[in-house]
Amino acid sequence: MNNSELNGRIVARGREFFSTISGEKPSLFNKGAWMGKVMDWSMKNETFKIQMFRFVDVFPSLTTGKLLTDHIREYFGEEKDMPPVLSTGAKVAGMLGSFGGAVLNKVLTTNIQEMARQFIVGENTKEAIKNLERLRKDGFAFVVDVLGEATLSEAEADLYMNTYLELLDSLKKEYRDWKPLPGVGGDANLDWGHAPKVNVAVKPTALFCLANPQDFEGSVVAILNRVRRIAEKVVELNGFLCIDMESYRHKDIIIEVYRRLKLEYRNYPHLGLVFQAYLKDTDKDLASLLAWARQNQLQISIRLVKGAYWDYETVKAKQNDWEIPVWTIKAESDAAFERQSRMILENSDICHYACASHNIRSISAVMEMASELKVPNERYEFQVLYGMAEPVRKGILKVAGRIRLYCPYGHMVPGMGYLVRRLLENTANESFLRQSFAEDAQIEKLLEDPAIAAERERAARAAKQKPEPKGPGGLKPFNNEAMVDFTRADHRAEFPKQIAEVRKQLGRNYPLFINGKEVKTADTIPSVNPTVPSEVVGVVCQAGTKEVGDAIAAAKGAFPAWRDTDPKVRAEYLLKAAAIARQRVFELSAWQVLEIGKQWDQAYGDVTEAIDFLEYYAREMISMGQPRRIGHAPGELNHYFYEPKGVAAVISPWNFPLAISLGMVSAAIVAGNCVVFKPSGLTSVIGWHIVELFREAGLPEGVFNYTPGRGSVMGDFLVDSPDVSLIAFTGSMEVGLRIIERAAKVHPGQENVKKIVCEMGGKNAIIIDDDADLDEAVPHVLYSAFGFQGQKCSACSRVIVLDAVYDKFIERLVSMAQATKVGPSEDPANYMGAVADDKAMKSIKEYAEIGKREGQLLYESAVPNTGGYYVPMTIIGGIKPEHRLAQEEVFGPVLAVMRAKDFDQAIAWANSTKFALTGGVFSRSPEHLQQARREFRIGNLYLNRNNTGALVGRQPFGGSRMSGVGTKAGGPDYLLHFMDPRVVTENTMRRGFAPVEEDDDWVA
Amino acid sequence: MNNSELNGRIVARGREFFSTISGEKPSLFNKGAWMGKVMDWSMKNETFKIQMFRFVDVFPSLTTGKLLTDHIREYFGEEKDMPPVLSTGAKVAGMLGSFGGAVLNKVLTTNIQEMARQFIVGENTKEAIKNLERLRKDGFAFVVDVLGEATLSEAEADLYMNTYLELLDSLKKEYRDWKPLPGVGGDANLDWGHAPKVNVAVKPTALFCLANPQDFEGSVVAILNRVRRIAEKVVELNGFLCIDMESYRHKDIIIEVYRRLKLEYRNYPHLGLVFQAYLKDTDKDLASLLAWARQNQLQISIRLVKGAYWDYETVKAKQNDWEIPVWTIKAESDAAFERQSRMILENSDICHYACASHNIRSISAVMEMASELKVPNERYEFQVLYGMAEPVRKGILKVAGRIRLYCPYGHMVPGMGYLVRRLLENTANESFLRQSFAEDAQIEKLLEDPAIAAERERAARAAKQKPEPKGPGGLKPFNNEAMVDFTRADHRAEFPKQIAEVRKQLGRNYPLFINGKEVKTADTIPSVNPTVPSEVVGVVCQAGTKEVGDAIAAAKGAFPAWRDTDPKVRAEYLLKAAAIARQRVFELSAWQVLEIGKQWDQAYGDVTEAIDFLEYYAREMISMGQPRRIGHAPGELNHYFYEPKGVAAVISPWNFPLAISLGMVSAAIVAGNCVVFKPSGLTSVIGWHIVELFREAGLPEGVFNYTPGRGSVMGDFLVDSPDVSLIAFTGSMEVGLRIIERAAKVHPGQENVKKIVCEMGGKNAIIIDDDADLDEAVPHVLYSAFGFQGQKCSACSRVIVLDAVYDKFIERLVSMAQATKVGPSEDPANYMGAVADDKAMKSIKEYAEIGKREGQLLYESAVPNTGGYYVPMTIIGGIKPEHRLAQEEVFGPVLAVMRAKDFDQAIAWANSTKFALTGGVFSRSPEHLQQARREFRIGNLYLNRNNTGALVGRQPFGGSRMSGVGTKAGGPDYLLHFMDPRVVTENTMRRGFAPVEEDDDWVA
Repeated sequence: MNNSELNGRIVARGREFFSTISGEKPSLFNKGAWMGKVMDWSMKNETFKIQMFRFVDVFPSLTTGKLLTDHIREYFGEEKDMPPVLSTGAKVAGMLGSFGGAVLNKVLTTNIQEMARQFIVGENTKEAIKNLERLRKDGFAFVVDVLGEATLSEAEADLYMNTYLELLDSLKKEYRDWKPLPGVGGDANLDWGHAPKVNVAVKPTALFCLANPQDFEGSVVAILNRVRRIAEKVVELNGFLCIDMESYRHKDIIIEVYRRLKLEYRNYPHLGLVFQAYLKDTDKDLASLLAWARQNQLQISIRLVKGAYWDYETVKAKQNDWEIPVWTIKAESDAAFERQSRMILENSDICHYACASHNIRSISAVMEMASELKVPNERYEFQVLYGMAEPVRKGILKVAGRIRLYCPYGHMVPGMGYLVRRLLENTANESFLRQSFAEDAQIEKLLEDPAIAAERERAARAAKQKPEPKGPGGLKPFNNEAMVDFTRADHRAEFPKQIAEVRKQLGRNYPLFINGKEVKTADTIPSVNPTVPSEVVGVVCQAGTKEVGDAIAAAKGAFPAWRDTDPKVRAEYLLKAAAIARQRVFELSAWQVLEIGKQWDQAYGDVTEAIDFLEYYAREMISMGQPRRIGHAPGELNHYFYEPKGVAAVISPWNFPLAISLGMVSAAIVAGNCVVFKPSGLTSVIGWHIVELFREAGLPEGVFNYTPGRGSVMGDFLVDSPDVSLIAFTGSMEVGLRIIERAAKVHPGQENVKKIVCEMGGKNAIIIDDDADLDEAVPHVLYSAFGFQGQKCSACSRVIVLDAVYDKFIERLVSMAQATKVGPSEDPANYMGAVADDKAMKSIKEYAEIGKREGQLLYESAVPNTGGYYVPMTIIGGIKPEHRLAQEEVFGPVLAVMRAKDFDQAIAWANSTKFALTGGVFSRSPEHLQQARREFRIGNLYLNRNNTGALVGRQPFGGSRMSGVGTKAGGPDYLLHFMDPRVVTENTMRRGFAPVEEDDDWVA
Repeated sequence: MNNSELNGRIVARGREFFSTISGEKPSLFNKGAWMGKVMDWSMKNETFKIQMFRFVDVFPSLTTGKLLTDHIREYFGEEKDMPPVLSTGAKVAGMLGSFGGAVLNKVLTTNIQEMARQFIVGENTKEAIKNLERLRKDGFAFVVDVLGEATLSEAEADLYMNTYLELLDSLKKEYRDWKPLPGVGGDANLDWGHAPKVNVAVKPTALFCLANPQDFEGSVVAILNRVRRIAEKVVELNGFLCIDMESYRHKDIIIEVYRRLKLEYRNYPHLGLVFQAYLKDTDKDLASLLAWARQNQLQISIRLVKGAYWDYETVKAKQNDWEIPVWTIKAESDAAFERQSRMILENSDICHYACASHNIRSISAVMEMASELKVPNERYEFQVLYGMAEPVRKGILKVAGRIRLYCPYGHMVPGMGYLVRRLLENTANESFLRQSFAEDAQIEKLLEDPAIAAERERAARAAKQKPEPKGPGGLKPFNNEAMVDFTRADHRAEFPKQIAEVRKQLGRNYPLFINGKEVKTADTIPSVNPTVPSEVVGVVCQAGTKEVGDAIAAAKGAFPAWRDTDPKVRAEYLLKAAAIARQRVFELSAWQVLEIGKQWDQAYGDVTEAIDFLEYYAREMISMGQPRRIGHAPGELNHYFYEPKGVAAVISPWNFPLAISLGMVSAAIVAGNCVVFKPSGLTSVIGWHIVELFREAGLPEGVFNYTPGRGSVMGDFLVDSPDVSLIAFTGSMEVGLRIIERAAKVHPGQENVKKIVCEMGGKNAIIIDDDADLDEAVPHVLYSAFGFQGQKCSACSRVIVLDAVYDKFIERLVSMAQATKVGPSEDPANYMGAVADDKAMKSIKEYAEIGKREGQLLYESAVPNTGGYYVPMTIIGGIKPEHRLAQEEVFGPVLAVMRAKDFDQAIAWANSTKFALTGGVFSRSPEHLQQARREFRIGNLYLNRNNTGALVGRQPFGGSRMSGVGTKAGGPDYLLHFMDPRVVTENTMRRGFAPVEEDDDWVA
């Protein structure tokens, strides 16, 4: 059959389908009911939709009347301003007025719960089984799925697994008694003669709380351990087990879990896997799985869905600058669905197919392709979601005679996430159900071949394509370097490989670099691997005052020519260095893993941030390098522009050895200053790589000088030098304030008052509000506090939890902490590694002891006793604002937990230290979020996310008070600190004659 | 006769006129000649025109072959790139190549001189008389005018006067022998029977170098003294004397000079005055003069011209925000010309009329109006410019039988200015000659009634009118407050009046102002008038540490509410204060005249600058107060915004007591800080007016606190306070560096590292290049060095003169200085007044003595011995870079003069001090100007103008090195120093659902 012939049949089939359900509407769109009204309003009013869906999300945590009332007001305004759909129920009841709040609470609660119940087959086993049996009576098969909160601990993973086991136990008691659904021939004990009556789907990531592609093997093994337990039970029932697909991030892990499980049960046919047609990978993944099955002579089953995380996948990809993994044209997914259905149907001898879609075109296509390919009925089936698209399921039942409903079961709380996903997909403009049943789109349009529609849309988009936007100097606009993508096997493989390569180079001798020459000194210091302190990463020459003096002289000598170099040309050196660093990103990351104990992702993030600084400041300087006219009086040209300050001393820390160093250095350099760079003694080898980057980029001699050295020997000398005009420092408050004080003294012969760019410490708090989404808050707090062993000035070192959620939060936080492991950073299975050096180790341990005395130890992890500088992951509860643990920077993995009576107190405590760097709030109260924006007075505030990992250009970084002097690295004002503004005013009038400029404010 | 009838006749007359000269072209547009080619190129190519006219301007000062060659290249590029009009002559001569430069020099020199000769009747008396006689032979009468450089001294004024006297003496020997031009009847010794054969015009401002409407009476008297000498001689010859009109600035002075002269010669009929039809004032001025003449029974004469300084008048008015004094539609001037001609002709019984125009429509209109009004021939005549519009003069001669040519005579150097004016007016798009003879416009169009054309153009402009542009917050965009306009009698009158008013209020007691309350202290200091130190301006309470502590506490207390006040609301207080200051501008100026000895204009400028700061920072803050989204990743909202730092100490100087104080205070306040303000002890009464402004504006209590006090008592206390987060200081380097050093120490309990905004001293140089226009350079240097007694951080304290022009420059500078007077600032006749106090007086005198030892005294003025703090105006020559006078800030009227061998050395010397504040260059070399832009490294560089008087928004002010920390008051980055940036990042994705923002970088 040719394509158009087949398409004709599909369209005919679709028309017939539509005609059989003519006049029917899914309850979703029934405007007579509350849900239909909500859907209707949501489709008409985007703001309402956002507020409504967000409200549904937060709703389960509104456990008191006051919380509920407050949130209703915050989300929807005062009653009088509310959309009628919300207040109607109460108004009709005639009960608005002084008791309005309570009534409204009641009405909304009832309505939302009813709405959720529409999609959830039951809140407990008993209810679920009752409903499932009812469905079977109506002729519908089921696949049941347990709704789950995010799994944050081993206990939660066990709980999730046990829910399945319990459900299966209950079903075991019942299913034999069920009358099989009617079919022709086959096994009389099975539905339709071939299908197990019991059919369950599991979400694999709910079975392991640390599932993460960075630790691919660990994740697969951990998930498999629990899936296996469920599988055993399913097999006992001769049931069907389907492994659900979730977000793209875990796709390859899930496929691998399925393959291994399948090999363990090679002769058991009823094990299925889900593929998502909207993923660009799916054609390949599907072909690969089918080939693998054929090769291994396995019977498999695939459920094909369109995919339900489109928004999430696109947003995440955009945020991380990854290729978008999903098709961005709806019809492309539909076309892929048909293409992939065909592929599966063509392999029906080894692969059973479950077509899961509400789209009548897709369903018709599968029916016609199956018919064309003569696929036996028992080799494919149709699935739709419980509670949705009732006319569609009815139509399928009528035409195909067999349909399975996907039935979520479980508590309301996790159910809300599911509910929001359903509301979202059905209010989307391109939703098939919306178009079919809420908007009465033309049937021709609905049944059109999606391949053709996709092609048309592609062409339309290409026609509308705007020219590439141009940034400063005609460059591509700044865009953050892509994050490492551990879903890619090649990225995963690079780390062990590069670490091994780097390891071969350890122990080398590193000279200074002054005026373009390598300079050796007798005095050297070894830089060691903190995980294995006996491993010497490099032996680094140490500058004394003589060498620092030479470096300052070199910088001073290079300055005039560099200052006068076109800003665009200066910027190009940065761009070249960025390109080189990009080529070496894995290698530079590997150096960090070994020299300072960064985890893979942390190390990679440091390198990409360094690249970002280079790219960002290059563009900023090109913009700022252009003199701009100010004022528009005729006969007068005023040009405002910037000039560098001179010799810049850059003194950098070890915790972001490439990013912070290169950030300060590149800002200074691109602005036209010449730099004397003192890296931290703990990361001088990484510091040396900056020499290499700039040397390879061809930076003129003397512009960048590298002088690692002992602070006690040469620190003051550098700071005091009358030839230094600018000091950029990132490090501790003590050292920072000392530099500020010393540098303020003007010495004889000094040209400039020294400018100090100074980033110091933090004592950063995250506030957990009483309505916070703990699924999000817990892992983000854990990551913010313990990522890279808490050795970030941005790290969360206090978590201030509102009384109402304190116990729950702490329990989940500690449980999740318990699931993590401490060990060598080069092993991705470890959540935490060694700290920087023995001095840090001792100091952190002291603080942990102080904390134990001031408060109560909630958790202290084990640490390896292999000689590395390990400190336990430590969580201390009961900390009060006056405690040292609430006030002093620890700079290590010690988290203080504080219990606040309300949000005001939480904010007050959060602000109560001498620092003002970063902080976070997890809340779903619009008012509290707004309050935090205003009153949580710190440099970088993060709402509903982790408070580390500021990105260049997006989260310019830096704080005030004793955290810094108000500079924002990676932000639009940063370069201003490295330059002085100048104005040149020209009187252009001569003999009464002035040339007219285009932007003159001329005579009307 | 009705209008349309008259117009019909005028048009008919015009047609006839055109037909009589059909086919003729003025030599200006003769493309066969070099000048015609230049005109042609200039009309086609705006860039060439600018370069050409500027080259003509600088040409006379290119006194060496090298200078000439260099400038030709700088203005027109290399020979191969030159427009053919320039190189043709040389190419034709076949002499380009290795000798090209010299040949080109020769060709250009010859051509330009020839071009000038076209318009100038002679370079010396002999040549002039010869040419005038030739003209008379051809039937043309003349009026001769002596070209003059700007008159910068009494000697130059005498020279100019003497040139007339000498010319008149020479004419006296000749004119009786001249055959009168033919006429009907009348006096046989006179031309045409009625007109004196000798007719001269004088430019009155050339007769007094300090002519200035601020000193109206002084200017009138001084000019009249020399005009009278010329008039005496003219009358001896029974000649005609016409007082030329110049720029609008001197119009009323000139009218007054004419009136007084006329009254002295009430019976002599041949004294004329020029009016310019393009001035909006002229209808009124003309009516007033005619009425005055009639009332006094005087016979007068008026020459009416269109006006030749249109560009200059519009540019100056725009630059100063004055109403544009000229009609901005060309036809309006033409219509005014006809209207005013009629007014004169209607008064022909008392007023002789000289119609001076090349416009055939205007000429025809005068002819027809005269005919209609039956004005006798002897009561009106026609004038055109020598060397221009030959067909027109021929036509007039033919029709009217009498025409007078306006003949400039004198040296090439001043002639170039005249030449440029002629070239400019004839290349203007709306030039009648250009349209008639270079573009062959339709005769109908050329002869159209200008009143109708003007109306049509007004309507067209109104239709095209764009909506008023909006600035931040919907306010009018920032515009500098208008300068004082002493051409206005009301502005002149306000000063004595307000000074008298203020004088009545002297001696009052002034309290402190803390937390909204007036606070008295026992300790007081009198603030005195430096001109008359016995005059106590006010007795000012002095804050001790107790009061400063209270003020800091008040500011700290007010801070939270003020910080949280909407930036727009904060800005409104500034705008209110600005409005109040605007109402009180003359009074506030008068306080400054009395308290610190500012001249009228200096005082007024200080108040308008204060208003500018209020208006500018208000708008800046409204813009910056808006959080801006940065980054466009979906699902993530990053808002970047600013927050104030806290309590700001503002320590301000006495030299700009309102402007600098209010600048720093208003920046701090509008940014959200609360201020403790310490004014200078010398200007604390003006400081008190800031209290009044803000109190009247309703600023909340505690936001602004006024604490004058003794630095020795409370200065360190204020600087050291741990509650002060920001110090804004303007003053001396010594105090500034001390503050910087002290403030860098962090004290216990201190919240923030103190931010220092610090403006310190300067040792500012102006460079005089070898091609500088000394007419401009001399008065601007004098003003920059001695305005307000040199007591500005921006003041010129060194002038670096290139060897080639050193002697000439010094001679003119000293001569001009000699013309000035030192005395009480309240008398506008005085160029300089007393300095701030006895301490300043002593210090400045010491520096003068040092200078006399180091170099040579070139000039030292007399000073009154009336007890004021006077210091002579002092100019010291022979200063070398190593001298103290070349390195140390004097802050008074002592100017060091340095002789540099070339421009490179001048720049090196200019940069050779520890300061980097302001500076200037007078040069007409494009390369040197460019070099200065790059290499003269200071905060504010001024090219070809004075180097003081920076305007808010146009010349953001401030320097680097030891002049300041790189802040620019009144500039776009200034408020950044008063705030810390913050970033709030919100993860907007919940349950995989993120609202789409308009500016998201979304999926393609």
